[in-house]
Amino acid sequence: MMRGKQKSLDTYADDLFPKMREWRRDLHRHPETGWTEYRTTWKIHEELKPLSFTLYTGEEALCAESRMGVPGDDELKQAEKLASEAGVPGEFLSRISGGMTGVAAVMDTGRPGPETAMRFDIDALPVEESDQPDHLPVKEQFRSCEDGRMHACAHDGHTAIGLAVAHFLHDHQKELTGKYVLLFQPAEEGSRGAAAMVEKGWLDSTDYFLGGHIGIENLPVGTISAGSDRFLATSKFDITFTGTAAHAGKRPEEGKNALLAAASFIQSSAGVAPHSGGATRLNIGQLKAGSGRNIVPDRAVLSGETRGENDRLNRYMLEETERMSRAAAFMHDVKVEFSTVGNGTTAGCDHDLKTIVTGAAENTAAICEVLDSVSLGASEDVTHMINRVQSCGGKATYMIFGTPLTAGHHHPAFDYDELVLKTGFLAFAAAVTEISRINEERYR
Amino acid sequence: MMRGKQKSLDTYADDLFPKMREWRRDLHRHPETGWTEYRTTWKIHEELKPLSFTLYTGEEALCAESRMGVPGDDELKQAEKLASEAGVPGEFLSRISGGMTGVAAVMDTGRPGPETAMRFDIDALPVEESDQPDHLPVKEQFRSCEDGRMHACAHDGHTAIGLAVAHFLHDHQKELTGKYVLLFQPAEEGSRGAAAMVEKGWLDSTDYFLGGHIGIENLPVGTISAGSDRFLATSKFDITFTGTAAHAGKRPEEGKNALLAAASFIQSSAGVAPHSGGATRLNIGQLKAGSGRNIVPDRAVLSGETRGENDRLNRYMLEETERMSRAAAFMHDVKVEFSTVGNGTTAGCDHDLKTIVTGAAENTAAICEVLDSVSLGASEDVTHMINRVQSCGGKATYMIFGTPLTAGHHHPAFDYDELVLKTGFLAFAAAVTEISRINEERYR
Amino acid sequence: MMRGKQKSLDTYADDLFPKMREWRRDLHRHPETGWTEYRTTWKIHEELKPLSFTLYTGEEALCAESRMGVPGDDELKQAEKLASEAGVPGEFLSRISGGMTGVAAVMDTGRPGPETAMRFDIDALPVEESDQPDHLPVKEQFRSCEDGRMHACAHDGHTAIGLAVAHFLHDHQKELTGKYVLLFQPAEEGSRGAAAMVEKGWLDSTDYFLGGHIGIENLPVGTISAGSDRFLATSKFDITFTGTAAHAGKRPEEGKNALLAAASFIQSSAGVAPHSGGATRLNIGQLKAGSGRNIVPDRAVLSGETRGENDRLNRYMLEETERMSRAAAFMHDVKVEFSTVGNGTTAGCDHDLKTIVTGAAENTAAICEVLDSVSLGASEDVTHMINRVQSCGGKATYMIFGTPLTAGHHHPAFDYDELVLKTGFLAFAAAVTEISRINEERYR
Amino acid sequence: MMRGKQKSLDTYADDLFPKMREWRRDLHRHPETGWTEYRTTWKIHEELKPLSFTLYTGEEALCAESRMGVPGDDELKQAEKLASEAGVPGEFLSRISGGMTGVAAVMDTGRPGPETAMRFDIDALPVEESDQPDHLPVKEQFRSCEDGRMHACAHDGHTAIGLAVAHFLHDHQKELTGKYVLLFQPAEEGSRGAAAMVEKGWLDSTDYFLGGHIGIENLPVGTISAGSDRFLATSKFDITFTGTAAHAGKRPEEGKNALLAAASFIQSSAGVAPHSGGATRLNIGQLKAGSGRNIVPDRAVLSGETRGENDRLNRYMLEETERMSRAAAFMHDVKVEFSTVGNGTTAGCDHDLKTIVTGAAENTAAICEVLDSVSLGASEDVTHMINRVQSCGGKATYMIFGTPLTAGHHHPAFDYDELVLKTGFLAFAAAVTEISRINEERYR
Repeated sequence: MMRGKQKSLDTYADDLFPKMREWRRDLHRHPETGWTEYRTTWKIHEELKPLSFTLYTGEEALCAESRMGVPGDDELKQAEKLASEAGVPGEFLSRISGGMTGVAAVMDTGRPGPETAMRFDIDALPVEESDQPDHLPVKEQFRSCEDGRMHACAHDGHTAIGLAVAHFLHDHQKELTGKYVLLFQPAEEGSRGAAAMVEKGWLDSTDYFLGGHIGIENLPVGTISAGSDRFLATSKFDITFTGTAAHAGKRPEEGKNALLAAASFIQSSAGVAPHSGGATRLNIGQLKAGSGRNIVPDRAVLSGETRGENDRLNRYMLEETERMSRAAAFMHDVKVEFSTVGNGTTAGCDHDLKTIVTGAAENTAAICEVLDSVSLGASEDVTHMINRVQSCGGKATYMIFGTPLTAGHHHPAFDYDELVLKTGFLAFAAAVTEISRINEERYR
Repeated sequence: MMRGKQKSLDTYADDLFPKMREWRRDLHRHPETGWTEYRTTWKIHEELKPLSFTLYTGEEALCAESRMGVPGDDELKQAEKLASEAGVPGEFLSRISGGMTGVAAVMDTGRPGPETAMRFDIDALPVEESDQPDHLPVKEQFRSCEDGRMHACAHDGHTAIGLAVAHFLHDHQKELTGKYVLLFQPAEEGSRGAAAMVEKGWLDSTDYFLGGHIGIENLPVGTISAGSDRFLATSKFDITFTGTAAHAGKRPEEGKNALLAAASFIQSSAGVAPHSGGATRLNIGQLKAGSGRNIVPDRAVLSGETRGENDRLNRYMLEETERMSRAAAFMHDVKVEFSTVGNGTTAGCDHDLKTIVTGAAENTAAICEVLDSVSLGASEDVTHMINRVQSCGGKATYMIFGTPLTAGHHHPAFDYDELVLKTGFLAFAAAVTEISRINEERYR
Repeated sequence: MMRGKQKSLDTYADDLFPKMREWRRDLHRHPETGWTEYRTTWKIHEELKPLSFTLYTGEEALCAESRMGVPGDDELKQAEKLASEAGVPGEFLSRISGGMTGVAAVMDTGRPGPETAMRFDIDALPVEESDQPDHLPVKEQFRSCEDGRMHACAHDGHTAIGLAVAHFLHDHQKELTGKYVLLFQPAEEGSRGAAAMVEKGWLDSTDYFLGGHIGIENLPVGTISAGSDRFLATSKFDITFTGTAAHAGKRPEEGKNALLAAASFIQSSAGVAPHSGGATRLNIGQLKAGSGRNIVPDRAVLSGETRGENDRLNRYMLEETERMSRAAAFMHDVKVEFSTVGNGTTAGCDHDLKTIVTGAAENTAAICEVLDSVSLGASEDVTHMINRVQSCGGKATYMIFGTPLTAGHHHPAFDYDELVLKTGFLAFAAAVTEISRINEERYR
Repeated sequence: MMRGKQKSLDTYADDLFPKMREWRRDLHRHPETGWTEYRTTWKIHEELKPLSFTLYTGEEALCAESRMGVPGDDELKQAEKLASEAGVPGEFLSRISGGMTGVAAVMDTGRPGPETAMRFDIDALPVEESDQPDHLPVKEQFRSCEDGRMHACAHDGHTAIGLAVAHFLHDHQKELTGKYVLLFQPAEEGSRGAAAMVEKGWLDSTDYFLGGHIGIENLPVGTISAGSDRFLATSKFDITFTGTAAHAGKRPEEGKNALLAAASFIQSSAGVAPHSGGATRLNIGQLKAGSGRNIVPDRAVLSGETRGENDRLNRYMLEETERMSRAAAFMHDVKVEFSTVGNGTTAGCDHDLKTIVTGAAENTAAICEVLDSVSLGASEDVTHMINRVQSCGGKATYMIFGTPLTAGHHHPAFDYDELVLKTGFLAFAAAVTEISRINEERYR
């Protein structure tokens, strides 16, 4: 019987693979950054509409005030205009307007059983995609159509996997028990979106929670990890120093130099003392300052992030950083605005659920090796979801789907072996099947 | 007889004033920054074509390799496209393509006499013009049509004055003696353009050289200065630090942080020791760095300038600054490229010519007060022209045309009383007339 | 039989305790910093002379050229003068003159058996001892007699334990087998002295090596640890920036500012990127710069250290730091001298020897608990000795002797419960006895 | 008659010269820094006692609370002990104890006439004198006997000149009119002492005030300047940053790094924007920080100064500097104490008095050239005196006495041609004589 099931899972995946690749490439061609995934949301919605799910979007899917780092009105409007031009119907667009992107999809089998939630993140990055001829999206003509935006973190693949899982649930509805919640989450980059779905309550009655990521380590396709550890707690922040412009030659003393304040801040904050409690990080990733060569710069805008091996360490870094930004402003007699625009916490995966995932994977031929855990050393706002599930008594894990990478995550030449879409899908599908099977026994 | 002449000069100016204002407002509406003054060049050319001047453009006007700070090909191409759309004919455009803007216009009266050169700068600034309702260009609907570009240093007015002077010379050709050279100079901002006209030889046989600027001090309209002093020597430079990007959370040690190098440079260079020899200045006016919040920044691009009360002081500043940029790169193990993209020197105005200007101005009613000199405390690449003229035995001066200003030079709300166009024109016209008269006596 | 032995060890310790306390307090009264332990060396020598050891001092004990961070001649001369005044005979002083301090003492039982080496560090710190009335050395009148010097790291106690161990070996010579080497090591602070003894070859034929430290964690007296881990690799360095003085008011541009170079270095080096491979540290602990308020400072002298969880990480920090010092000098056009004056590495304690120590401790009543290992999180140049022993096939460990502390190590109010002298001694004596017993069985 | 007078002045000077040189060399051998001029005060007092002056010392000479930058009790006590050992009688010492040094000497001729005040500064510098064999004080055996202290600014010569002037007044009492006040001022270095004499009221009824300095420019002996200009206003300050020490390896996050705060302050304050109003200066001349290589530094002590071409510019610098010190403390979460310990202002010399000095100098053969003014470009607290005299209606000037210098002021190898003592004396004596003569005419 296991043979049969195993065959059917792999065959199902093989059959669906061309479709998954097509979804992935379409999304790759049209990357949308956090809170502007208008077309993406619509595409997901369109794909799920024919299936046996109740769909939730806009205010029904998200808690608006729990969103972090929502772009300004101009940027949202501009994105909505582009989405409209890309074919998103006005009626649909108005429902998710103002950065209310993402979809929650719920399927109740009608049979007693556990509630299983799965999360797929859907946003892209502000990265200009490589135009080198050997970059697969160039060769195969699905390179990003949008200047300065790119799916460089595989969320296009995650979304494709999520759609495949939806089809699988729909197609196997009769054989499954319990309830299924699919969360197509916006704005994972910058750790901005998970909280808004968590606060809507989607995870308050979850028994099992599954998430996952393509890549991370250069594992071969066919290898997955049942869990992850060493999520870094993180905070994302923006800083604006505002001074006074002046003619640098005629009246230097009248200037209040925002760029000097920024330089002072950058140098000092790089030197926050390390902590005996564990690893910490600070990065000022972007700075834009000044208006002209001969004008004392009156404005400097920075974006950065802190991280720590746990929340206490991250808070230590964030507090030091914020104080230093205020001190740098004081130093150069300018104003400063410090705003936290995202945060992620740490989390641990449940041993029991990792065991289920590991056992389930044995039922597929395509997954040939399952690691217990992979060390992430990075931040992911799925931690908010994991923590909520666990605090309500459920089990949660975050899987890793092995694939060679052409370049690191967030790099312009980032790409992965598309066969990982299949193993990623199989990991979810096999786990879901196994959870159902286990509980069938339990409920019987 | 003086009465008569005076009347005719003032009357001429009054009659021409509506036209000058129209020219000025047209240019103000279509600002073009240094080396992209395609439409501006064409407009000047069109206006001068019917007059008795031989016109020179492109390679005939400028020494291409002496140009400094020419924008990159993309920017030039983009500007040429805009110019084409604005109506500049392809044939004309091809002559000045690649940043070969500006016009030299020569009129020979055929009668023995001195050679007089006059310079009018024509470029705009990368400043976003104010859209406040009380800003005159808004009220009168001649605000800049180009985002992020503005005539915020009165070169629109200078060009209008130059066109008026051309008409005056044309109309009074019979009464004048000698030869006249009008230089409509591109790229004064950043001190980038004068050298290219100087090296073409336009000033090698000049007897009298006149330049001038609207504003500077808040003098009333009607007051002018016959000369200027305290030109600051200046160098303009661009710096690019190039490091290596890395995931700031996972592999911080693999990053080579270009932004830290920039911050280190900015802090240190602000502290170059003052010099007992006189005033010095350094300004880093712009910085753009980094690609994303969580990426170690691999690139930082800066633009800045040094100044000094004389060339030695400016060189001291430039050398210190360049060394510090190299040290900052060494400090953070990144690469640096330092390029000088403009420079201006100091200069002194000739007493004899100031005396002529002062005497001449008495022949106009509109100019009611003439100062001997105004302290500039800023940089102007007209100094290259003044120095060339003087080194070839000629006399030179740089006049100031008083007007109240609504905001400082380079400020988004900068504007001036348009009546200064008349006094500016009159200063040139009266001086030209006086020079001719003096020499008539001499040659007789 | 164990009962008997146990009794005799504890009794021996009880009997010797008043003497140990007396030694300790005498040394505490006369602290001498690294390479100037002239009186200390003499006192040790005097105490060991009547016992059955062959004693080695000066060139016989140390490899002169392997010493690191030896003070300058003036400081050595001054210390020798003080030692002479304190009663050290000229003949003896001449043997250890020039910073050739420390004693190696060898006892051969004449009976086959292993070679056991033990190390006791003897130097004090440049710390001004507390003069608070509740500080025990004040109350009991053994506070440091030397301004600015103090035994604030318990090396006075280590030396006293070493002397007690020597007496024990002497008294039990007949019952023991093999050979014993006692190393009274100078200049542990700054990780400067161990290498000089190692290079002399004292540890090339060692079978068992024992070292130990009082305090570290606030364990109760009676608790010891059989080993230590997480030694941080470390490098100690001095930096001198040398510029040019100038009158800060009249000729600022003639100065080459060594203090600005130091400030630039300090700020930048604080920001060396953390390393994904583990914990790293940098500290600039001292700076002295400048000669007068109104003189551009021409000299800045710094002392600092790097650390890392392993040698590679420490090397990363040291290389970054050194490069930055050179860059800071380049930045401000001054000269720099960077010299490494000490270094410690990491090391691991041998399980087998920890087991022996643990078993042995059960034979004493005073030691009531033995931990396997304590995390040091600090640097100790005993690591050079441990590594040498292990590379020659021997076993090594570094014990910790618990005691409450009145303040942290290196603090002016640092002090410990003197009863730890007894448990420290017992740990060595019991281990030595056990090693002898085990080997007796083996050799039998 | 002029012939006769001229002869007598020069002859008087020639006769007195060996004595002046002897005084100078004695003072040079025993330099005492500001507020510790105990022996110097006593020597002056002893020399003046036999003459016809009323002498004032201690509370009678100075306003205690107007003194700035008085050293701490320990330093004062130590200096008093040395003075006592040097022979200063206890009774005298007790009168000037606690840093109440300096002498005011008043002679009233009893004949109507103006009141003339003269100032001679008496303190030395914390500079270690050169021990090179070609340094005259070495060769002639009057090098400083005090380690780290030196008369490197010629105040030994100023004092010798003052004593000579006193003798001259005494010897010519019958030929002079009016009243004479000689102020032997302590603590000129650091601009700390003048205010204390000014506040005592010595200059409230002064008609003519004369001060002077040896050296400044490398003028030949025989050339003097009748006045000085470009006194820089100045403020002297001390800053102490106080943080928290911590073990740099074990608990870096517990440290509050005072040295990082100092480095941040030094870097930032070096970059205070230049001022369009004129020259400004900032120097941090000394820094001492930290207690040990491996301890996070908890203390950093700085001394520095600001200057400006006028009081407003100096205030601008001082305010910027103070704010930056507070910001740097905030940046690194440490405490800061900023205290102003000295200040000097600007002043202008009176044309009328310069004319008198110039005319008078013609009556001496030794002074062969008199300049009108020398640009100082430095700070001198004589400005407080000049300003007080002028605000009360008197005339004041500050003369310069030319001499070649072996090295700049404050340099360890500083020295001057002792013949300048003669021209310095003559300048005062001739001026006094001329003032008396002029007024005799007036009163007649």
